[in-house]
Amino acid sequence: MFNTLFMHMLRKSFVFTLLISLLATAHAEVAHAQQWGVYELTLKGPDTGNPFTDIQLIAEFTQGNRLVTVNGFYDGSGIYKLRFMPDTQGSWHYTTHSNTPTLNEITNELVVGEPAKGNHGPVKVNATYHFAYSDNTLYRPIGTTAYAWIHQGDLLAEQTLKTLANAPFNKMRMTVFPKRYEWNTNEPVLYPYEGTPPNHLDFTRFNPTFFQNLEKRVQQLGELGIEADIILFHPYDKGHWGFDRMPKAADDLYLRYVIARLAAYHNVWWSLANEFDFLKEKTTSDWDRFFHIVQSNDPYNHLRSIHNGTLIYNHTLPWVTHASIQNGSATEDHGRAILYRDVYQKPVIFDEAKYEGNLPQRWGNLTAEEMTLRFWEGTVAGTYVGHSECYMDPKEIIWWAKGGTLHGGSVARIAFLKKILEEGPNEGLEPIDKWQDCPFVGKRGQYYLGYFGRETPKTWPFSLYKAELKQGMKFKVDIIDTWNMTMTPVDHIFVLKKPGKYFVGDVNESKISLPDKPYIALRISRIP
Amino acid sequence: MFNTLFMHMLRKSFVFTLLISLLATAHAEVAHAQQWGVYELTLKGPDTGNPFTDIQLIAEFTQGNRLVTVNGFYDGSGIYKLRFMPDTQGSWHYTTHSNTPTLNEITNELVVGEPAKGNHGPVKVNATYHFAYSDNTLYRPIGTTAYAWIHQGDLLAEQTLKTLANAPFNKMRMTVFPKRYEWNTNEPVLYPYEGTPPNHLDFTRFNPTFFQNLEKRVQQLGELGIEADIILFHPYDKGHWGFDRMPKAADDLYLRYVIARLAAYHNVWWSLANEFDFLKEKTTSDWDRFFHIVQSNDPYNHLRSIHNGTLIYNHTLPWVTHASIQNGSATEDHGRAILYRDVYQKPVIFDEAKYEGNLPQRWGNLTAEEMTLRFWEGTVAGTYVGHSECYMDPKEIIWWAKGGTLHGGSVARIAFLKKILEEGPNEGLEPIDKWQDCPFVGKRGQYYLGYFGRETPKTWPFSLYKAELKQGMKFKVDIIDTWNMTMTPVDHIFVLKKPGKYFVGDVNESKISLPDKPYIALRISRIP
Repeated sequence: MFNTLFMHMLRKSFVFTLLISLLATAHAEVAHAQQWGVYELTLKGPDTGNPFTDIQLIAEFTQGNRLVTVNGFYDGSGIYKLRFMPDTQGSWHYTTHSNTPTLNEITNELVVGEPAKGNHGPVKVNATYHFAYSDNTLYRPIGTTAYAWIHQGDLLAEQTLKTLANAPFNKMRMTVFPKRYEWNTNEPVLYPYEGTPPNHLDFTRFNPTFFQNLEKRVQQLGELGIEADIILFHPYDKGHWGFDRMPKAADDLYLRYVIARLAAYHNVWWSLANEFDFLKEKTTSDWDRFFHIVQSNDPYNHLRSIHNGTLIYNHTLPWVTHASIQNGSATEDHGRAILYRDVYQKPVIFDEAKYEGNLPQRWGNLTAEEMTLRFWEGTVAGTYVGHSECYMDPKEIIWWAKGGTLHGGSVARIAFLKKILEEGPNEGLEPIDKWQDCPFVGKRGQYYLGYFGRETPKTWPFSLYKAELKQGMKFKVDIIDTWNMTMTPVDHIFVLKKPGKYFVGDVNESKISLPDKPYIALRISRIP
Repeated sequence: MFNTLFMHMLRKSFVFTLLISLLATAHAEVAHAQQWGVYELTLKGPDTGNPFTDIQLIAEFTQGNRLVTVNGFYDGSGIYKLRFMPDTQGSWHYTTHSNTPTLNEITNELVVGEPAKGNHGPVKVNATYHFAYSDNTLYRPIGTTAYAWIHQGDLLAEQTLKTLANAPFNKMRMTVFPKRYEWNTNEPVLYPYEGTPPNHLDFTRFNPTFFQNLEKRVQQLGELGIEADIILFHPYDKGHWGFDRMPKAADDLYLRYVIARLAAYHNVWWSLANEFDFLKEKTTSDWDRFFHIVQSNDPYNHLRSIHNGTLIYNHTLPWVTHASIQNGSATEDHGRAILYRDVYQKPVIFDEAKYEGNLPQRWGNLTAEEMTLRFWEGTVAGTYVGHSECYMDPKEIIWWAKGGTLHGGSVARIAFLKKILEEGPNEGLEPIDKWQDCPFVGKRGQYYLGYFGRETPKTWPFSLYKAELKQGMKFKVDIIDTWNMTMTPVDHIFVLKKPGKYFVGDVNESKISLPDKPYIALRISRIP
């Protein structure tokens, strides 16, 4: 509503505006930024009243005919900020608009240069079921979860970052709001609002220090090449602070504030909620509204999804970019995991497939073998799987909630899988023979990655689904022990015979001897 | 468009209309019908020009403030018909409206009595994932498919009906248009259009004899308690007749004609297509439009779905009443089948789960054991599975396409399953412990039906998911050999101990000995 009124006001004062902006341009020094970096404009403004709700501030960034509108925010102590992530290089111009004169009609040129090393821009959906960075570099999500890692103070946060620097993960699920749950009864170091914690907080006045910490952590993740899957709401509160049951107006104000602060970070994803259906105070129409707010306030169209408890949100809706799924058993079997792809026709990430650990809860006591199996089954279904770890700790520092260090056995195996994927085709792996219980994913005619899961076959007769295959093509095979992390080339070149009705085998009907153990995979690659 | 113009015309002639209708009422004898039966009004009208496109005929049936508008149709030889299926008893009144005077303003009272014995009315969605007849009698779909059974002549059709009379099936998937495919190269006995077959048919002139035969078959199925899952389009034509590539106007005319003729039959379901995505001439927007036409022309809101090839239609759309799924491997495992329920939050019918038979095609060569397994896995997932049979035949009479007789081994086992279901709770069976690889479906606290599939456990420690269970409750167990069709009561009464974190067992930690064979199920029933 503000926007409409305000734009009307703007148009009325066009001549004045023009004058001011010419003057401003004449005075300012040209600003500089990096592509997909954060350009931050800091302004001094009023600190009386409630600047979070009283003061409106936006900036219009233009490049040729393109217009990107960015929301500013109040950062406390009379400081206002605007953050912009330019997605192209070259010259941009901006002008601020505000209902307070000192913040209004500030204008300048912004010259955008090359991105910082390692910054490939925001991740987007690619080839329907997969992801790529904005520079088209393939992105294969290998996520972990440490929901409340930013709320545990600097010491633990720094340790978490150190752990991540040596781990295979390139996505982190994390909450904005603190978390209250079993083994999570400590109060956070900072609160997102002013007021008296825990339950006399003023939902109209944010605590900038809290958000500065959040941003620092998001940026640090970015430097490690990790996407921050920001969980905007969650049910692990139950009224203790009341972030799960704020009034509608407070919810909406919060979303706009978070987006204004965070959207300019290239590595941000929006997860509307964790276990959204467990937030009993919210309705489906609330979630739809939240999606609309996120979509209309985020100038960069960061990825958006919502994670379920026992009821799944309708991920076919157009504002959902990918399906973020919790399911306790779907990733035990590629034939299950694959089904979500078909119904959503979007990328599928099993952000919660149970966790490795030793908690009494069955969602938190997978063996390392079972956590690893879920990554492989999900992979050969053409989907993506998330990790976390729940080993009991005398100080209640459990990775899944607080970060710290990793103790489990699956991390090394996930790193091993990641390496194998990086050696494969530079594109998302697709199911080879859909709905036929086929354990192979890959690129037909070129590359096949198969996984036998808990089965322990002694041999495998060389046989591939015939699509894209021709008599005489040659393949080599590697036997992968996904648990012991070995890769053993088969000393044989397989030459295709004439394809049958569905499958094609080797001219010599060759079979491959397998180690009679579970967790065995095959990599089959075409050779010229 | 007609309707709008026509209603406008009607209003203009209101006084005249009133006069006519008073006169007509004075003369007519009161008509009689049965609830959910077909009331058919036969009228004489013009037989010149093209009555299929020139003459418009509707009737408005009213009961109190309720108005049901019914489309009439031309039945050839100057005969026009209107069919109405009253869904309530008591007095109704109707008035016809037409752009031809002889068919216009015919009015009468219709007195509706009790339904015919065995007629429970149309099937509707019930309890989100299940079905019930309109009189609230539970309906558990146990379907089969004989796509083109109505096109094979009377002799074979009568044999098919005889087979069905002794089979467990209560739903038949069948096409309106004839089918051309491997083993289906014979021309149909009748064509749906006038003209010179195969490919000089006039898509603006229907062949009433063809549709009279279709209706007779639908009615005969109804008398056997079988729902007719009418497939409106299919790809098994490839331009031979061209029913798969008619112009838009012909598609729409066809849909309105079929619905006008068939909607009054209580046992009709609309399947927009078989393998819709294989109809390469149609787009998603065509299918959406077809759904809208069906929905707006069917006064009774019969069930609507659309069956896929390799691409699934978005069954979350509001005009889809249930998901009709083809998938070659989903019903091999309850943990797969169940996933469709959650994403659609509608009933799921696996209308094509591969078929029992010995065709070279892998969709048509399941063993009887594997066909039976699919019924059980689907059942313990809270979904429904369809049967068909594809045994090669010297005369190419294969049940799946032409009907005839059944040769396979799964039918008897499906009948055995049906009997077990009928002995169970009078409501749809629900997953007991969703997403946890739990093979039990039922009614928590009362009734549990579990299935071990291909596994051959030697014992089963009595253990149920704890929801709705309390210490001291008593249960009896039957061991079901689903293949050999035996039901063996366990000679023990199981008494629940104190529930654990997730499960509850027997006070004596009792285990059940199982026959060390595949295809074993358990029925666990509470006793007072």
